[in-house]
Amino acid sequence: MAQKPKWVVAKEQDRRAAARETVWLFGLHAVRDALSNPMRERVRLVLTKNAADRLGEVLPASGMAPEIADPRRFPAPLDPGSVHQGAALEVRPLDWGRLDDLARPGGNAPLLVLLDRVTDPHNVGAILRSAEVFGARAVVAPSRHSAPETGALAKTASGALERQPYLRVGNLGDAMQRLKALDYMLIGLDGEAEDGLQTAAPGLAGRPTAIVLGAEGPGLRARTRELCDRMVRIDAAGTFGSLNVSNAAAVALFALSAGRDA
Amino acid sequence: MAQKPKWVVAKEQDRRAAARETVWLFGLHAVRDALSNPMRERVRLVLTKNAADRLGEVLPASGMAPEIADPRRFPAPLDPGSVHQGAALEVRPLDWGRLDDLARPGGNAPLLVLLDRVTDPHNVGAILRSAEVFGARAVVAPSRHSAPETGALAKTASGALERQPYLRVGNLGDAMQRLKALDYMLIGLDGEAEDGLQTAAPGLAGRPTAIVLGAEGPGLRARTRELCDRMVRIDAAGTFGSLNVSNAAAVALFALSAGRDA
Repeated sequence: MAQKPKWVVAKEQDRRAAARETVWLFGLHAVRDALSNPMRERVRLVLTKNAADRLGEVLPASGMAPEIADPRRFPAPLDPGSVHQGAALEVRPLDWGRLDDLARPGGNAPLLVLLDRVTDPHNVGAILRSAEVFGARAVVAPSRHSAPETGALAKTASGALERQPYLRVGNLGDAMQRLKALDYMLIGLDGEAEDGLQTAAPGLAGRPTAIVLGAEGPGLRARTRELCDRMVRIDAAGTFGSLNVSNAAAVALFALSAGRDA
Repeated sequence: MAQKPKWVVAKEQDRRAAARETVWLFGLHAVRDALSNPMRERVRLVLTKNAADRLGEVLPASGMAPEIADPRRFPAPLDPGSVHQGAALEVRPLDWGRLDDLARPGGNAPLLVLLDRVTDPHNVGAILRSAEVFGARAVVAPSRHSAPETGALAKTASGALERQPYLRVGNLGDAMQRLKALDYMLIGLDGEAEDGLQTAAPGLAGRPTAIVLGAEGPGLRARTRELCDRMVRIDAAGTFGSLNVSNAAAVALFALSAGRDA
């Protein structure tokens, strides 16, 4: 019998490992949102009596039977310091499907956010919130070297993790090339760029657009930068300082979502 | 001899206590910025040998003699989990002077940010960064129920704490009334407002303007809201979700700083 090539075996193993992988969400808000999301595969629910009362009618509707726990010996394996409010839910990551399906233009000029190695879960959580508010189709990040879907990310995302596609791709450069094939304009953000966001925005209103952001400090990697169609900076008043990456994302989303259908 | 009235004594005690109050800054970036700031009153500097090497020429220029500490027994009284990178500096809060002086219009149409009980130091740190980038004169918050100037705030502010006025006032409502007397337009942010930021921005370009933001959840208090001249919302594409408060501040600063001299 012919053996499968090694890379096929590795890919299948990766996929099985990802399906087995689970995440603990915590905090009343995050747990309530995940319990209300029919797309969310749920494994285990741990609540204090008080948290169960506060979740109210969400609980029976979710079909899950919680384990009621003593608040002094809360059994969910959370990081110390996690403000769980007596509520923790083990889930599987959401499956948002394929980039080409999410990104396909149709009827409107879609907006995407691409993150090049943004690893801080609080920043990515805040970016998911902004992406949802400004109607971006998805936030796209590489599988490695980016913030995983964790409880801390879910808490900062304040519900947006359940609704806003957060798509992890094997290789960001390949994803950028697929987006180019779909007629996207790839706009890299860089404080040193010559063009300002205010100047660039009107010309992009009718085009599928992806905003590309790097981590603070290193910024965009060389290959990511090469694949961008254009670099823009956020117009600053002074010469000092720089924006936090989630703040830069929010400003770019605001400027580029104007006049675009969601 | 006539006794001082009780309220005068209390005020003097408050002022003396504030002058005695110190804050520990930590992390190489925050410590370097504070050492380079001639306005910053410094009390005690603790460094590992490695951190002292990395601070390089900033050290002799600051005129401070560091205590060199063993990294395994770092003696600065920091919160557990503080990523200090072997550098901690005890300082006194910066004195930014009086609101009326900072806010006085002259030559241009100044921009301010007012925070109504925004207590999260990470959010306030990010707001200071954005305020600096978009040329706001100051970020103003009440002395109580807002994020104090701490090491965590300084770290998130990434240098902006040393340069961007963060003014704490006894009473936010009184400060708003003083700003009205200086011809400021007070613009409250509220997701439920009828007017959009995009619509409101052009009419404000030539006016002294203060952006007023509340904490996530409670939003603006009733009195704060009453004192606003106008409420606006950030135009969203969908009906779900909301922005993180620092992201809302960045978007409002971006929209309202356009066409305004810094």
